[in-house]
Amino acid sequence: MKKYNVAVVGATGVVGRKMLQILKEKNIPIENLYPMASKRSAGKTIEFGGREWVVEELTDKSFEKDIDFAIFSAGGETSKRFAPVAAKCGVTVIDNSSAWRMDENVPLVVPEINGDEALKNQGIIANPNCSTIQAVMALKPIYDKFGLKRIIYSTYQAVSGSGRGGILDLENGVKGEENTFYPKPIAYNVLPHIDSFLENGYTKEEMKMINETRKILGDQSIRITATTVRVPVFYSHSESINIETNEPFEIEDIKNLYVDCPGVVLMDDPENNVYPTPKLTCDTDEVYVGRIRRDFSTENGLNMWVVADNLRKGAATNAVQIAEYLINKGYFDK
Amino acid sequence: MKKYNVAVVGATGVVGRKMLQILKEKNIPIENLYPMASKRSAGKTIEFGGREWVVEELTDKSFEKDIDFAIFSAGGETSKRFAPVAAKCGVTVIDNSSAWRMDENVPLVVPEINGDEALKNQGIIANPNCSTIQAVMALKPIYDKFGLKRIIYSTYQAVSGSGRGGILDLENGVKGEENTFYPKPIAYNVLPHIDSFLENGYTKEEMKMINETRKILGDQSIRITATTVRVPVFYSHSESINIETNEPFEIEDIKNLYVDCPGVVLMDDPENNVYPTPKLTCDTDEVYVGRIRRDFSTENGLNMWVVADNLRKGAATNAVQIAEYLINKGYFDK
Repeated sequence: MKKYNVAVVGATGVVGRKMLQILKEKNIPIENLYPMASKRSAGKTIEFGGREWVVEELTDKSFEKDIDFAIFSAGGETSKRFAPVAAKCGVTVIDNSSAWRMDENVPLVVPEINGDEALKNQGIIANPNCSTIQAVMALKPIYDKFGLKRIIYSTYQAVSGSGRGGILDLENGVKGEENTFYPKPIAYNVLPHIDSFLENGYTKEEMKMINETRKILGDQSIRITATTVRVPVFYSHSESINIETNEPFEIEDIKNLYVDCPGVVLMDDPENNVYPTPKLTCDTDEVYVGRIRRDFSTENGLNMWVVADNLRKGAATNAVQIAEYLINKGYFDK
Repeated sequence: MKKYNVAVVGATGVVGRKMLQILKEKNIPIENLYPMASKRSAGKTIEFGGREWVVEELTDKSFEKDIDFAIFSAGGETSKRFAPVAAKCGVTVIDNSSAWRMDENVPLVVPEINGDEALKNQGIIANPNCSTIQAVMALKPIYDKFGLKRIIYSTYQAVSGSGRGGILDLENGVKGEENTFYPKPIAYNVLPHIDSFLENGYTKEEMKMINETRKILGDQSIRITATTVRVPVFYSHSESINIETNEPFEIEDIKNLYVDCPGVVLMDDPENNVYPTPKLTCDTDEVYVGRIRRDFSTENGLNMWVVADNLRKGAATNAVQIAEYLINKGYFDK
């Protein structure tokens, strides 16, 4: 069996470590691992597959070796600067940042939805925003069967989506210490503020959900709005999603869409307290859907509640699934 | 100056204590205080206005004395049973439970919005649901100026809304102890479950928001849906509110509605991190509005973020304001 040479850029970060964990869990056959990071982390060692690998500093020379694919998870600036360098060296980049997602030459891929797009890459494949991945996983079956006219997202996002700074702010906050990462305390608080604000009053995170949903579903006609909110939860994002479909449906039809739906689990028996929560879904790779009910305030309206581990399906799992998809299609055999 | 004889039913509960605190803060002139509670709490003493008052057990005889008004905050069952008893004795009941809110003979009152309804009571006046009060406070100026076609609520509600059990579950949960009150852990978790589930898949809390909003605004034509969610916050509820108005508006017009709007504070300068959060708004009597921005996904669409202290304007402050309104109108002078 062919083994792959894999770089993980940002290997020492919260998502980078999760990438390594999931590469391991999914038994991706790895010949050589190249953990890369900023100068600060260079020289550290990382255990993987029974060996120690030394973290090297990311430079323009880093990709001048035989690497099949590189998973980038070191922030937008690093990706903007180094993903094209890697691509030029013939390395297939799977980029977890927002830097390339809306570039028309870069496929934005959720393997269960549009895996084939990954094959059309020109060197860079973008991994979507965490909140968007779980939303489109839940919405895609509805889109295919009934069409989507409008989506209104309100999110409840975990601090791990901000990396270590967010996690520390919550850990320290419950001990009564001051916030040093977020602009306001996150312990026992909620912040309607994820990523920076734009001139139109939306945050970048909100615009990511709007634009990326359309790109992944491949339909610019879907009308979408979003309010994204940070909550004092460590892992797993939750979303209150209100939609209008194009075609009429029965609630049972919607629920049935999630029977045998790869990557999505229906968890919807509220009378027995069965609905997804962050604690229940954390450390799993699936997207969980519950609280499915008709929105009587409009024609073809529906409310749903969608929860998934933001570091797994929302980031690392999806990125590794993209690599897996390419491997299974023999993409690196060429 | 006339002084009033006031009963507080459920005086030892989380909201009951807040009622007493706000009666004090607002300098409601009280001659005699009658704290009432279940047998379990009877005999305890409560300090109020420089005197000690003994908590008496609530019975059918409790209101056979000279009482001007009684604030009930001891749950729906107690209100259903004893509010009519009090009313029959000539006591004006201000009821904080959901028992009487949708009764067509019971006014549902937010003084800034429909205070005059309180004067038409037949013995019982209902204090609305906490999430509903702050929502209608924010929506009323928009309703008056541009009309409301549709409202989509997604809430982020504090544990104090559940009383002491909710507060303890969160306090103990962050220490690693198990939940004993909520059906699932609330520490570092969010639960799309407030009050019990109905056959249509909605919770009672969600239906309260839908039905009470229409009743307070006096308009059954407004189309409304809601998803209500408990978050690990002690005090203050937050709400992501998406609306469609009947008439077109400019964003500046909306913001200007909150200049000199009694009880509502505009807190909306996101580029300088100015937006309401639970921590900022807790222990104040105002409703805070921020993140006002156009929803481009529909005609006349708007997103907003509304936060208020659920025990104050969401419960005790509003109830005491109803009493204050009646006092100022000379209602008890007859």
